[in-house]
Amino acid sequence: MLQLTTVQTPSVNVPRPTKAAILVIGGAEDKVHGREILHTFLNRSGGVEASLAIIPSASREPTIIGERYVQIFQDMGAKQIKVLDIRDRDQGADHYHLSYIEECTGVFLTGGDQLRLCGLLADTPLMDRIRQRVQLGEITLAGTSAGAAVMGHHMIAGGSSGESPNRALVDMAVGLSMIPDVIVDQHFHNRNRMARLLSAISMYPQHLGIGIDEDTCAVFERDAILRVMGRGTVTVIDARKLSFTNQAVVGAEAPLSLHTLQLHVLAHGDRYSLKRFQPLSPKHPETDAKAV
Amino acid sequence: MLQLTTVQTPSVNVPRPTKAAILVIGGAEDKVHGREILHTFLNRSGGVEASLAIIPSASREPTIIGERYVQIFQDMGAKQIKVLDIRDRDQGADHYHLSYIEECTGVFLTGGDQLRLCGLLADTPLMDRIRQRVQLGEITLAGTSAGAAVMGHHMIAGGSSGESPNRALVDMAVGLSMIPDVIVDQHFHNRNRMARLLSAISMYPQHLGIGIDEDTCAVFERDAILRVMGRGTVTVIDARKLSFTNQAVVGAEAPLSLHTLQLHVLAHGDRYSLKRFQPLSPKHPETDAKAV
Repeated sequence: MLQLTTVQTPSVNVPRPTKAAILVIGGAEDKVHGREILHTFLNRSGGVEASLAIIPSASREPTIIGERYVQIFQDMGAKQIKVLDIRDRDQGADHYHLSYIEECTGVFLTGGDQLRLCGLLADTPLMDRIRQRVQLGEITLAGTSAGAAVMGHHMIAGGSSGESPNRALVDMAVGLSMIPDVIVDQHFHNRNRMARLLSAISMYPQHLGIGIDEDTCAVFERDAILRVMGRGTVTVIDARKLSFTNQAVVGAEAPLSLHTLQLHVLAHGDRYSLKRFQPLSPKHPETDAKAV
Repeated sequence: MLQLTTVQTPSVNVPRPTKAAILVIGGAEDKVHGREILHTFLNRSGGVEASLAIIPSASREPTIIGERYVQIFQDMGAKQIKVLDIRDRDQGADHYHLSYIEECTGVFLTGGDQLRLCGLLADTPLMDRIRQRVQLGEITLAGTSAGAAVMGHHMIAGGSSGESPNRALVDMAVGLSMIPDVIVDQHFHNRNRMARLLSAISMYPQHLGIGIDEDTCAVFERDAILRVMGRGTVTVIDARKLSFTNQAVVGAEAPLSLHTLQLHVLAHGDRYSLKRFQPLSPKHPETDAKAV
């Protein structure tokens, strides 16, 4: 329905992505060899005709990281790329930036510090408009590492590993709500973050936990299918049927009880229905009908 | 039924444990302060009237580690403790050891290297007799760290962390089959072993994955209840309803798909039914009827 609406909009000169999606990347995506995930971002944004915005605001070296992604996407043939190098919140209302967002077809959030990214961009006119266009399916959004962490309404701001799940193991904050009902963790198995994601989910069991490994991408399609690509896994923790937790009654450092979670480990090519909350069988018709 | 049978045996002078169990300890159990887990082992073995056997064969320093546990249990009031310091397989048929196993009420397997422990003791008359008496509910068995790893038929011999689940992440071997249908991992969240236990379970999805944190104990009761005590958590991975895995068709280092696992994180006081494969509600009558 929404896709039909976007086709009917009058701005005929703007390249129109036919398969807008949200790409949530677990960090350390391949930038040198096949660059499969970054190629997919470019393709979903309209290919060489795309108009890309790179937002490096999570990083404390935004010039360097912005330039790096410009170089990569230029190498792939992208003709129009702008770095929105936002370093204070006022720039989030900048007319130049806002008008570019109207014509752009793909937005890329780099890595860095997710608290910095949210501090600079949450609730700015720029980010509100990006969210609106993303949710209308008009532009493709990608975020890697810190840029992935901000995707949910609830965000993992930091944490630790090597402990039993406990609330003190994870620091929660408010994210950019691009996919409100998920809590994303990244560098997931690489940095042994299962216990911290479980700890986060104990506080918000109605939100789906999504742990994304490095050089791995969870592609959130418009039809509520999550598709996995890349070198690692995407771990889904579904606590909607949680039968018991001690979360509310124990101290912040006490080990957590979490009874009756569903867990899925998804690898390249796997798909998960965000409507039915279950993986699609590799032979399921919904699966075979799709390709990148 | 079996407990009644043991009461009817003629050896009336042997202290009879009324609540024999298998205590699977995640390593690094408290040996200095409350010693809650070790106290429970002693109580389940008959208290101060217990006859204990310490088997330090997993360790390359069996004298030191054996003496340490002797000291601990003596401090607690145990009157009869023997170290079965088995250093070659022939000793597993030793008449002295075998006759002590007939009268003892509690056997403790220390930490060290689980492959060494199995290499020395698997399929010896001594271990066969211990298993028989444990499974008849005549003696209490405890194992910590390496001594915990050997409990299942399939055993995690080693492995790594910091990677997406993959078969090469874990080395499997054959354990001592005290609780044949489980695969135990220990130092679990402390050493970030979720990915390796998932990798193990991908190969044996009919076996229950049990990940035990340090200073934490999964008490396997005679009535098929697993009860948790200690400072951390016990993680249960139930793959019996696995809907898909790529395990059989991908390379050893390829990331694994594992769709539709049940996951439970259990903390102190929690109970899990090994018959119904679900946690018992804290208000469930089966729960309230039990105490250590």
